Amino acid sequence: MKVAVLGHGTVGSGVCEILWNRNSEISSAAGKTVELGYVLDIKDLGNVPYSDKISKDFSAVLSDPEVGIVAECIGGLEPAYSYIKSALENGKSAVTSNKELVAEKGEELLSIARAHNVNFLFEASVGGGIPLIRPLYSSMNAAGITEMAGILNGTTNYILTKMFRFGADYSEALSDAQRLGYAERDPSADVLGWDACRKISILSSLVWGKTLKPSEIPTEGIDKITADDVKIAEQSGFSIKLLARAKLLENGKIFAKVSPALVKNDSPLASVSDVFNAVLVKAETTGDVLFYGKGAGKMPTASSVIADIIECAKTDDNIKTVFWEDGAQSVFAGKDSASEKYFIRTDFDVSAVVPGAEKIAENAYITTALTESEVSVLTEKISEHGKLLSKIPLFE
Amino acid sequence: MKVAVLGHGTVGSGVCEILWNRNSEISSAAGKTVELGYVLDIKDLGNVPYSDKISKDFSAVLSDPEVGIVAECIGGLEPAYSYIKSALENGKSAVTSNKELVAEKGEELLSIARAHNVNFLFEASVGGGIPLIRPLYSSMNAAGITEMAGILNGTTNYILTKMFRFGADYSEALSDAQRLGYAERDPSADVLGWDACRKISILSSLVWGKTLKPSEIPTEGIDKITADDVKIAEQSGFSIKLLARAKLLENGKIFAKVSPALVKNDSPLASVSDVFNAVLVKAETTGDVLFYGKGAGKMPTASSVIADIIECAKTDDNIKTVFWEDGAQSVFAGKDSASEKYFIRTDFDVSAVVPGAEKIAENAYITTALTESEVSVLTEKISEHGKLLSKIPLFE
Repeated sequence: MKVAVLGHGTVGSGVCEILWNRNSEISSAAGKTVELGYVLDIKDLGNVPYSDKISKDFSAVLSDPEVGIVAECIGGLEPAYSYIKSALENGKSAVTSNKELVAEKGEELLSIARAHNVNFLFEASVGGGIPLIRPLYSSMNAAGITEMAGILNGTTNYILTKMFRFGADYSEALSDAQRLGYAERDPSADVLGWDACRKISILSSLVWGKTLKPSEIPTEGIDKITADDVKIAEQSGFSIKLLARAKLLENGKIFAKVSPALVKNDSPLASVSDVFNAVLVKAETTGDVLFYGKGAGKMPTASSVIADIIECAKTDDNIKTVFWEDGAQSVFAGKDSASEKYFIRTDFDVSAVVPGAEKIAENAYITTALTESEVSVLTEKISEHGKLLSKIPLFE
Repeated sequence: MKVAVLGHGTVGSGVCEILWNRNSEISSAAGKTVELGYVLDIKDLGNVPYSDKISKDFSAVLSDPEVGIVAECIGGLEPAYSYIKSALENGKSAVTSNKELVAEKGEELLSIARAHNVNFLFEASVGGGIPLIRPLYSSMNAAGITEMAGILNGTTNYILTKMFRFGADYSEALSDAQRLGYAERDPSADVLGWDACRKISILSSLVWGKTLKPSEIPTEGIDKITADDVKIAEQSGFSIKLLARAKLLENGKIFAKVSPALVKNDSPLASVSDVFNAVLVKAETTGDVLFYGKGAGKMPTASSVIADIIECAKTDDNIKTVFWEDGAQSVFAGKDSASEKYFIRTDFDVSAVVPGAEKIAENAYITTALTESEVSVLTEKISEHGKLLSKIPLFE
């Protein structure tokens, strides 16, 4: 069975390298010969050992009956979406590392895959090299998952780790991440939480079977976290992490949120440092389960693409594709459907204004559980008396 | 498809409960109706909702063509082994939570399963409710796993956590664990490392495809760890964990070991507390991956049995069973095939006796990397000059 790799960037070149160098292990794991058939890229590629596989013509891939699997590593919506759609419609399985595509078009592509009895798999779209998507649908699919909380973005976790370890302020830590290549020149998608938002949208849709659109998830980044927040959190036994969370409510709706959050030091999420990612999954039968590993990078991400390629090759005569549906109606429960405690910092003593708040440091408090609307009311009340310096939810 | 649950103890009753209460989720995940067909136990069971399924007659299970899956939750070698063997030979898939059975008889049972084109799955035998076995063979099977290090026994991890948090000594912490039901009255299998040894034997055999027998793995328990070891380790930035380790050497042989080990506080294994389990997997393409969760307990373990039942039902028309072989020749590399650093405590200054040792506290040192034989030589030399109080390998 031939594999066509679309895109020879960071992930795509990793996929080609692994397919080329570990071919016998891959074929043995798949139970049949799996080989690199095509490498598609608009650029001219340098000197690669698989230079005879290079092509710029996607129609050649489509019309080659030996190509059973298309591995999309281009990124972005187009042409990735059109290529995968054509591949599926032509009876080829597709795998991808493209979180934007899966978050935005997953429902449609899964439905096309089902109609054509082929696989559409996307292990690499969340958590890089961590086996996560497959364990969720093949091991925990009847465990009764009720909640997920993930550190799903390595860039922001690196920045926060830096702020904690060295007392660096946000812009300093960001520059450092950019210098090391962990953050892009325009870091918006990472630091404003969009990347984590797409990933929790995928996990939620997968686990509870109904599309939760990224656009519906309240998303806040780490750009307002200060060195003072970090200092006080640390002194009080907390870490600050960018958490992407989703929770199944009793009415079947989902409460989801991406934001910085205070995490107690004894939580397994607190010790996830640097560019590592982790997802804490709470389920009725298993209790807490955590998956941890490298959430990005060429080889870890490529490795997950390879795992999906093997899965496609192994099951091509017996497709049991994953599925989610029902994007027509919103499954988002609304921002006031859950209440939580908040860490607040002010420039004055708020005991008169915030009844019941627990003081953890000078002008720093943990409130009682509040909904988003109650937080807004509180924010207004505080503004009447002084200044609100920080407001960060507490993860419990 | 009917499931026969053998044994209605802690795990077996959990499996029955989940099969009974979450039946629609299970059938939907399996893509076909899966139902409890038989519950076999020699005891009379109390008032259970599935009382009409109770039987004491295994031959009825064997001869019922509707039984596709046998879930063995009896524990121990017999009659578990004979029952599973007969089930497989009669064309029924088998799943088990029985680590002793898988460690001792896995090779033979996998080979019988393959010959009869049925599944033999054992997710619950290692790591309780943590999805671990399946991610290892279905997601990381071409990742090039080079090393595994696991906290695979909740009882000993609870005892060590207690010693660290409260400065308790070993016997105090053990009594506490017994009082809470975390340790058995005869705690040998846990505290002497045998349980962890069976589990790393299973993981090693699975990942590298060749039987590594528990009897070959050097195994040391936590019974010699003292409150002083804990105190000095803690002051020096380490935790002490009972680690079950296995490493693939360049000659294709495996170095494995179960022993207490010093773990640096910034390792993801260090923060695994109480009865939680975790396995750190190092692989060429993915880097470090960690799986964490409840390693024991009724519902977590039953949940993994259920995941295997679903997998059997899903794939019964297309079996791709896992496999390992080659138990005839030892794959154990020998105890001197790897060297490591050791934490040693003595009752005198060893600087003259242990050249190159790094002093981390009064009469406490980290040695340079040593093989087991070199450690023996060192131990002798130390005994000539004073007393060796502790000797614990360092996990790096």
